[in-house]
Amino acid sequence: MKHLPEKTIERLSEYRRTLYRCLDEGKTHIFSHELAGMHNITAVQVRRDIMFIGYASQGRKGYNIRDLINVIADIIDPGDVMNIAIVGYGNLGKAISAYLLQKRPKLKIVAAFDIDPKKIGSASSVVECFSVERLREIIASRDIALALLTVPADAAQQMAKALVASGIKGILNFTTVNLSVPGSIYLEEYDMVTSVEKVAYFIKIAQRDAELS
Amino acid sequence: MKHLPEKTIERLSEYRRTLYRCLDEGKTHIFSHELAGMHNITAVQVRRDIMFIGYASQGRKGYNIRDLINVIADIIDPGDVMNIAIVGYGNLGKAISAYLLQKRPKLKIVAAFDIDPKKIGSASSVVECFSVERLREIIASRDIALALLTVPADAAQQMAKALVASGIKGILNFTTVNLSVPGSIYLEEYDMVTSVEKVAYFIKIAQRDAELS
Repeated sequence: MKHLPEKTIERLSEYRRTLYRCLDEGKTHIFSHELAGMHNITAVQVRRDIMFIGYASQGRKGYNIRDLINVIADIIDPGDVMNIAIVGYGNLGKAISAYLLQKRPKLKIVAAFDIDPKKIGSASSVVECFSVERLREIIASRDIALALLTVPADAAQQMAKALVASGIKGILNFTTVNLSVPGSIYLEEYDMVTSVEKVAYFIKIAQRDAELS
Repeated sequence: MKHLPEKTIERLSEYRRTLYRCLDEGKTHIFSHELAGMHNITAVQVRRDIMFIGYASQGRKGYNIRDLINVIADIIDPGDVMNIAIVGYGNLGKAISAYLLQKRPKLKIVAAFDIDPKKIGSASSVVECFSVERLREIIASRDIALALLTVPADAAQQMAKALVASGIKGILNFTTVNLSVPGSIYLEEYDMVTSVEKVAYFIKIAQRDAELS
């Protein structure tokens, strides 16, 4: 298996989401141009991505949706379950936990960490929540590879450092801080503000164009 | 002003985040290669983006950070405040509200909507929360252009339709549903699962490479 580019992985993940929805709607096959239309990209791009992972369409009927979902899963999903920790169990941490628990059984949230004594050990929470003092111990004992970082900005870099020292392999950073971590750690930054700013920009442009015309 | 590509807008938004952090750290100037290193892209890409918005570096000292922040703001920020609604005021909706309220005064969350009577009109919430029955009225009276959609998946399409009927200009979709809306509405999909899957994939690849070597 080759190492695929980041953008290809993103698109495969997005195709799978769409394919599940099509299955729910009772479809069994789909054409590249249909998938392309649902993602605002070209059919050429879709066909290239899908050829790249070694799957071929069945001529006139298009891709078999169930088969394509399985091929994508083989490529992008962990072979076994991947254990995940939520670091910072506030509103965002809780929302992400609830979301993943429903959606992706192989991406398993096995612990949350917080500094608030009211959250720690709470039986009402979806995920077991521990004190950050136990970070190293729990990450080792529960074999956690990936941390979703949702702490306040001023705690982010310090917590990233503690995660690295605890043997974490990758961090998905939901804070606004650009973290610095060793090159051996896979780091993905996600700032919700960027998505909001992008939509706001295109609304602004559309409004200006409407005023000019 | 030209209409910039989506990816350029994303990068400008991300540069600005980094530039604010550099200002906080007491820096006044920055080189394109420094900015590039912080974003894992090439210095050529950074220089191209910044030339594209009509800003030039000051020779040996690099870009003036404060000036560059202002130039980026002129391009991507709304001329006036843009009013935003959160549709679905659960954990995710609350997290996003708290986040934006601190960060971007021109992107102003002026209302939330939910169906839970306990949330509606609650004085304790950061944002005033209304019944979804009042969607049309409040979107008109508060001049709301952008909706952040954080409702459960099974309510997403119906709610998107109601938003379009209420005159919304753009939707940032945090649900897992691929929405269908008219072409005149700017729609940005954000599925947190895609980011998590991407990090999980690269951890898997790194682990496999380590086993083979």
